[in-house]
Amino acid sequence: MSITLDNARKLISAIEAFAATHSLKPLTSVVLDPGGHVIAAERQDGASNKRFEIAFGKANGALSLGVGSRALMARAEQQPYFIAAATSAIGGALVPVPGGVLVHDSTGVLQGAVGVSGDTSDNDEAAAVAGIRAVGLVPTVD
Amino acid sequence: MSITLDNARKLISAIEAFAATHSLKPLTSVVLDPGGHVIAAERQDGASNKRFEIAFGKANGALSLGVGSRALMARAEQQPYFIAAATSAIGGALVPVPGGVLVHDSTGVLQGAVGVSGDTSDNDEAAAVAGIRAVGLVPTVD
Amino acid sequence: MSITLDNARKLISAIEAFAATHSLKPLTSVVLDPGGHVIAAERQDGASNKRFEIAFGKANGALSLGVGSRALMARAEQQPYFIAAATSAIGGALVPVPGGVLVHDSTGVLQGAVGVSGDTSDNDEAAAVAGIRAVGLVPTVD
Amino acid sequence: MSITLDNARKLISAIEAFAATHSLKPLTSVVLDPGGHVIAAERQDGASNKRFEIAFGKANGALSLGVGSRALMARAEQQPYFIAAATSAIGGALVPVPGGVLVHDSTGVLQGAVGVSGDTSDNDEAAAVAGIRAVGLVPTVD
Repeated sequence: MSITLDNARKLISAIEAFAATHSLKPLTSVVLDPGGHVIAAERQDGASNKRFEIAFGKANGALSLGVGSRALMARAEQQPYFIAAATSAIGGALVPVPGGVLVHDSTGVLQGAVGVSGDTSDNDEAAAVAGIRAVGLVPTVD
Repeated sequence: MSITLDNARKLISAIEAFAATHSLKPLTSVVLDPGGHVIAAERQDGASNKRFEIAFGKANGALSLGVGSRALMARAEQQPYFIAAATSAIGGALVPVPGGVLVHDSTGVLQGAVGVSGDTSDNDEAAAVAGIRAVGLVPTVD
Repeated sequence: MSITLDNARKLISAIEAFAATHSLKPLTSVVLDPGGHVIAAERQDGASNKRFEIAFGKANGALSLGVGSRALMARAEQQPYFIAAATSAIGGALVPVPGGVLVHDSTGVLQGAVGVSGDTSDNDEAAAVAGIRAVGLVPTVD
Repeated sequence: MSITLDNARKLISAIEAFAATHSLKPLTSVVLDPGGHVIAAERQDGASNKRFEIAFGKANGALSLGVGSRALMARAEQQPYFIAAATSAIGGALVPVPGGVLVHDSTGVLQGAVGVSGDTSDNDEAAAVAGIRAVGLVPTVD
């Protein structure tokens, strides 16, 4: 099972509504399926060039190791060489700061992940969590 | 100047409406700014894993060399080694089949590019063209 | 909108004039458009082999994340794993020391970025700032 | 010995004058030293995103194998697998179509190479040759 495109759209809308309410900087939101493949993405006007890649890397890192990207930051603080090695080993992006959040349904089945980038990492994560909850799904940040 | 996120959303909706009307397979649509950076993307339910990457590569190839991806296919037929070399040289994806379409405004200013993948390349291109026209912009396919 | 080639040439001339006035080591200057693509570059006689790549990486990193490369250095000091991950994720060069400066026009529209390398990072940045101001544009260093 | 920055500037000016006289599309010109490192580059307004990379790849390929890029095209026609393998082996760009021209002085000493991209490959090469001759140096196209 995966987040549907329809839900991904609603999820991103909720992220952007959260950003507006809290006056965040322009956000980029990426929704991935459980295999780490893009379902939907939006980069708000004014965001810098590579925000898609950073947001993707947060969500992809989360799915790659099965934890939210906040847990990857904790691991990077303790064992930076592990995160460097894992990034190389997985052959894709892994960005170990908050804002990459796993998505499960209410029965605990993995549905994908959301990555957000553009404001502080804490705010990016709060926006992702708000978006996931807005569609009745369950966020895991670490 | 770049396609705005709001226009990118409308453009993708029009692509998907075209796909529904013509009973196309699930499409993936990617909208890039003039610099080749993701503004928005949607992968319809049922599309295979790496359709984002293929659609991105069509649009990115178009922007990299300043022609629609149909022209890149013609070049690949004539000089496959050039396309292989260019792909390597640009350090990013370049997919030389139709479906990567340049987007200009009515005064000829480049606004970005659209990449579509999922059905035949010809149908992918037709969907991209329909989407671009739906928001009053001008497509260039070759 | 982007820095024009004509302005890029004047900007680089002003950087080199600054270097001469302040007796700096041979400088390499790179001017990028807002998408991170080379408009113009000059490496002064006597500069070492890879100065283009270093200067490019400062400017490209600035555009990728939307801050001057001095801010990237601050982030690297606090979270070296983030800068390492971002460098990998963006699929291009990112050099997190001063000398990569964002360029806006007087109305706040992004026009591109300038990267300078060859002397101390602080002097590289001072030269970039002088060059940007010489053509009536606005530098952002962090 | 290497082309000096002063000569590289004059060489690029002569390329652009040739382009104006012959009504070519916007050209990108790259001048490399004998080691394959950038001395100077200019991308004319309106050129597409990755023209620097293509022009660099022509000149770098020429220096890598010691022949003009027209000779690399001939080799690609005969042995495409060799050019593909060489591109991978050299760890850098090699674009095997005309427009990458070796530069010697009048005594036969290698001074660097010039790469041009933007119009047809034949016109790109003609512009490079005109630029090299304008500064009293000797072009080798194959």
